[in-house]
Amino acid sequence: MRIDIITVLPELLKSPFDASILKRAIEKGLVEVHMHNLRDYTDKSYNQIDDYQFGGGAGMVMMIEPIDKCISALKAERSYDEVIYMTPDGATFNQKMANSLSLCGNIIILCGHYKGVDQRVRDTLITKEISVGDYVLSGGELGAALVCDAIIRLIPGVLNNETSALTDSFQDNLLAPPVFTRPAEYKGMKVPEVLLSGNFPKIEKWREDQALKRTEKLRPDLLK
Amino acid sequence: MRIDIITVLPELLKSPFDASILKRAIEKGLVEVHMHNLRDYTDKSYNQIDDYQFGGGAGMVMMIEPIDKCISALKAERSYDEVIYMTPDGATFNQKMANSLSLCGNIIILCGHYKGVDQRVRDTLITKEISVGDYVLSGGELGAALVCDAIIRLIPGVLNNETSALTDSFQDNLLAPPVFTRPAEYKGMKVPEVLLSGNFPKIEKWREDQALKRTEKLRPDLLK
Repeated sequence: MRIDIITVLPELLKSPFDASILKRAIEKGLVEVHMHNLRDYTDKSYNQIDDYQFGGGAGMVMMIEPIDKCISALKAERSYDEVIYMTPDGATFNQKMANSLSLCGNIIILCGHYKGVDQRVRDTLITKEISVGDYVLSGGELGAALVCDAIIRLIPGVLNNETSALTDSFQDNLLAPPVFTRPAEYKGMKVPEVLLSGNFPKIEKWREDQALKRTEKLRPDLLK
Repeated sequence: MRIDIITVLPELLKSPFDASILKRAIEKGLVEVHMHNLRDYTDKSYNQIDDYQFGGGAGMVMMIEPIDKCISALKAERSYDEVIYMTPDGATFNQKMANSLSLCGNIIILCGHYKGVDQRVRDTLITKEISVGDYVLSGGELGAALVCDAIIRLIPGVLNNETSALTDSFQDNLLAPPVFTRPAEYKGMKVPEVLLSGNFPKIEKWREDQALKRTEKLRPDLLK
């Protein structure tokens, strides 16, 4: 899998891809992640990539021309399954989308900034608009890092123990059950007996019950 | 405002706080962000902070003792409004939560990793559990960065143009209207006439209509 990220702030994205699971996935050759600085694709002075919005109002808007040039340059090299734009009014990202994107070959992720991109970019160059949630961020960069993390960890071979991802929250529309580790007692607080029993069918049953209870209590919407 | 982030991967969080708006907010003294490496709070060999889960199963669980020590050390220095745990089964983060957290004085954010933290941490040390969305990440670090971004940009003085944050998506339960910038025509694609008209009441009306239309089409749930 290859991911091309188009951004005005490549430096913001450095450390998330240079640590832990994403770093290992890249080192193992399971995924390639390339950053493209949008300012390299403008002819304007001061590497300008944004301008005031037509009709007035606060906040700058990213211009279509540098974005068009950057995406066209990438598409001339290879074909892409999706050209994604990170925006708060996109489709809300969820585990199902992560699963499906993890099967792609090549994707482009465009990070919005300021008041967003010129609408003509969205109308003609973008194939999928994604929001990571109902909140506004300073830019699309953290959202892009988050989408990359969610999909890269699903690529076979990335996690050491593949069953680990399958028992995560959301994979079966249930929240994960509570987990406990040593010590069995800490400041008077004990681990539930059943988990120390060694009776695995009983433990399995307890976990299913707990997952269902927790989902009913915290996220009844997932059960509908 | 002061934010203390407890993590096993402080290096992952370096660049997001060292660029753009978050960097400027920190430099202006509008917010302090401190990273605490959980491994500094364990007595175990190899700085171990996780262990196998009781009852068996894939994935390690973060132990209560180092987390308790770290949080206690912070609380001994000052009082905190919230001790937040980033977890996919927490309350889904949204703009209203961002608004309310931006008014806090001091908060702690604990980043989960692996299969999560020992349930006793959640039962006794945490005051608020937050999920950034219905998907699973390798750890809570990117979610924590995202929450920090969403709340820090709301602190007065952080954004250059304060009206800019107020016209963002979600602040009035509507998605933002489309935006356009120069050139007025690009490869045959024109900017809507009205935006070039200079008739500001008409422009304002067009934007309201568009915001409503876009919300009805893409996110009818926000209008309920």
